[in-house]
Amino acid sequence: MHNLIDIRNLDKEKVLEIIDLASKFEDETALSTCFGKHLALLFCEDSTRTRFSFEMAANKLGIHIYNFDAGKSSFSKGESLKDTVENLYQIGVNGIVIRHSESGIIDKTANEVTCPISFINAGDGNNAHPTQALLDFYTMQKHLGSVEGKKIAVIGDIRHSRVAHSNVSLLKKFGANICLCAPKYFKEEAQGVIYTDKLEVALKDADVAMFLRVQKERLEDRIPIFDYVHDYGLTMKKLRNFAPENILIMHPGPVNRDVELSSEILDGEYGKTILEQAHNGVFVRMAVLDMLLGENK
Amino acid sequence: MHNLIDIRNLDKEKVLEIIDLASKFEDETALSTCFGKHLALLFCEDSTRTRFSFEMAANKLGIHIYNFDAGKSSFSKGESLKDTVENLYQIGVNGIVIRHSESGIIDKTANEVTCPISFINAGDGNNAHPTQALLDFYTMQKHLGSVEGKKIAVIGDIRHSRVAHSNVSLLKKFGANICLCAPKYFKEEAQGVIYTDKLEVALKDADVAMFLRVQKERLEDRIPIFDYVHDYGLTMKKLRNFAPENILIMHPGPVNRDVELSSEILDGEYGKTILEQAHNGVFVRMAVLDMLLGENK
Amino acid sequence: MHNLIDIRNLDKEKVLEIIDLASKFEDETALSTCFGKHLALLFCEDSTRTRFSFEMAANKLGIHIYNFDAGKSSFSKGESLKDTVENLYQIGVNGIVIRHSESGIIDKTANEVTCPISFINAGDGNNAHPTQALLDFYTMQKHLGSVEGKKIAVIGDIRHSRVAHSNVSLLKKFGANICLCAPKYFKEEAQGVIYTDKLEVALKDADVAMFLRVQKERLEDRIPIFDYVHDYGLTMKKLRNFAPENILIMHPGPVNRDVELSSEILDGEYGKTILEQAHNGVFVRMAVLDMLLGENK
Repeated sequence: MHNLIDIRNLDKEKVLEIIDLASKFEDETALSTCFGKHLALLFCEDSTRTRFSFEMAANKLGIHIYNFDAGKSSFSKGESLKDTVENLYQIGVNGIVIRHSESGIIDKTANEVTCPISFINAGDGNNAHPTQALLDFYTMQKHLGSVEGKKIAVIGDIRHSRVAHSNVSLLKKFGANICLCAPKYFKEEAQGVIYTDKLEVALKDADVAMFLRVQKERLEDRIPIFDYVHDYGLTMKKLRNFAPENILIMHPGPVNRDVELSSEILDGEYGKTILEQAHNGVFVRMAVLDMLLGENK
Repeated sequence: MHNLIDIRNLDKEKVLEIIDLASKFEDETALSTCFGKHLALLFCEDSTRTRFSFEMAANKLGIHIYNFDAGKSSFSKGESLKDTVENLYQIGVNGIVIRHSESGIIDKTANEVTCPISFINAGDGNNAHPTQALLDFYTMQKHLGSVEGKKIAVIGDIRHSRVAHSNVSLLKKFGANICLCAPKYFKEEAQGVIYTDKLEVALKDADVAMFLRVQKERLEDRIPIFDYVHDYGLTMKKLRNFAPENILIMHPGPVNRDVELSSEILDGEYGKTILEQAHNGVFVRMAVLDMLLGENK
Repeated sequence: MHNLIDIRNLDKEKVLEIIDLASKFEDETALSTCFGKHLALLFCEDSTRTRFSFEMAANKLGIHIYNFDAGKSSFSKGESLKDTVENLYQIGVNGIVIRHSESGIIDKTANEVTCPISFINAGDGNNAHPTQALLDFYTMQKHLGSVEGKKIAVIGDIRHSRVAHSNVSLLKKFGANICLCAPKYFKEEAQGVIYTDKLEVALKDADVAMFLRVQKERLEDRIPIFDYVHDYGLTMKKLRNFAPENILIMHPGPVNRDVELSSEILDGEYGKTILEQAHNGVFVRMAVLDMLLGENK
């Protein structure tokens, strides 16, 4: 394993190896094998939890961090991402975490460079967000044991969501029954999944309901937000009426309060899994970094 | 002690405990009890010395630092400070230093969150700046032994100054004779202090003269700066005419040269205490961080 | 050695001492003598490789880094560089790396301050970039043994290039035969060097051809870029026709692809020296930092 660019490139064994190592880091039964390595973080889109989660993972592993300010770097002098990365490698950087608005740019750049730097995709456009899918998977496994045969509802802006794309790929690999739920302006065709535009259908008998962020900053056209909240926003009333009591409510964050989920849900028992996702992300990223940059790579 | 949000919440014993620990860190007779902890720094207003002072304190204690760029974080996606902080805690952050333009927001957020993260106020609006008051107190104690019964003149923009507010609270607790000196557009009513609009009255028999920054970037209305400098700006001539020779001249910085204080004062013997304040700030912040995040918390 | 502001202030012995220590750091036969020191980085102009190179050098030496965001610092409150630096020293900062658009500002500030902080010039306006000259010299020495008597062609915007100014000063000290090559709008008079406006004359019998970046962001007037590329841009065809086969092609980076150098050159064998420059820079900066901040200072 040299790069983590798309979850589709990982087979089931590798996913389980990552999850297993994450669990050991969480239990403090594994030690860093990448102490003293150097990791650059290039976030060309806004981020708090993903960037801090990678920084925390790096600090816990003893990795040095190089924070890249895209606006003040050689990018502003017109240098390509490929040339920048080649130079970072020469300076001694072992891996680079990239978030970028352009779908596919990380894969493209990884194919262009000749140096053996490791690429970690922290979200590229609408395309992929593999560490998010891994941490969601880790969270589900903790609660459900296995996702095989479980009903996972993914609700919201399927079309524009890299989180949805990576999660669906990963969950299909492990035999989950995926139900996508979206209005037609957020719908996307996909094979091997069930589709509905009714929230109650999605919630019925679901083991997990994963709500996606309405990404106001990424939507080109206006969506009818009032109708969306009415039809797809989860309230305690809808939850009690349509969902099993032990359903897991998940969200990649940041949540738009009272849009995807009501404050009552967020601040109550059902909201805790979402914070747990943020917590689990650190250990999953420790595992990914250790496997990419460490001695067991 | 779990948070440091307002100096008014600290009793005298706790203040002296902080000062004592600061002194031990300065003498290198105390060791960090918070090695390997994680501290986020969220500065929503410009800062050099306060931010670097906290970073230096953290580095000396072996604390990992997470620098938050408010403009590039989930704030820009509309997340509330409360939700951001809850997530930082889940990621593993033990404490958060916040500077914010809104008075009271840190106290409000600390009351909203359910997680045991520690809040450290690095300045909120016009309200409070407790670590500044502590480092000023530490500096005065070094020079004066005790502030009890000493005349401390605070000169300038009392009304808009969080530095003044926190200093006055703290100095009153310890029995200083406080003299506030300001023109009427900077005046603020306060109990238990003397007020004058004449600089010579403030300087007469003063042990300390603390000058406040004219915060051009925070003043909504124009002030008559030429008159202000004439009436309240300190020159060597005024100092010799009105102040005792051994007066301590203090300023939280950054000084507007030749506004609050003349360059002759800044670059001479009397200017050295101001640099000493910056120096002392590191040890005071080490003490605060160690007491909030360390084993003795 | 207390500051590194201009290469002209270093005698040959000191330069060789730096190069020798850089070589030891590269071979891992020297240990840091500045572990636990504190270094501020103030980049008022964009940078990737220089800033990351200093950060990498600092991390490898165990030096703490303080990244200064000029736009969010006390500068925006009107504080002078001199006063900022005095305060950083009080806070505990041992050295400061500065990149600034104003020629001479670092030397001026170093003369103004009274504290013994070390200044390292990372590029000031059109004036000087001493660590770049040192790393270029280190790279040439590795390939050529010595630069004495060797023909070094420097091609491009001589007039506005701090890289050229520092390189020419250093190479003259060591007896290189320097040939400057530029159109008249980039020409600058200099003593003890040959000047040509013909690329073929510069390349003939040259041991090194150092191409300078067309600094689009620093040029006030437009240059005829199409003609410039035609006359001074290096292609494989020109290289084969006019240059010796074993010529070293150098460039401080970032390269404007297909402006100074064709992609064919950059991505082939001749392009490797440019990446090597970035690689060597780290060890040269480790040597500089260790000599300025370490025990052997």
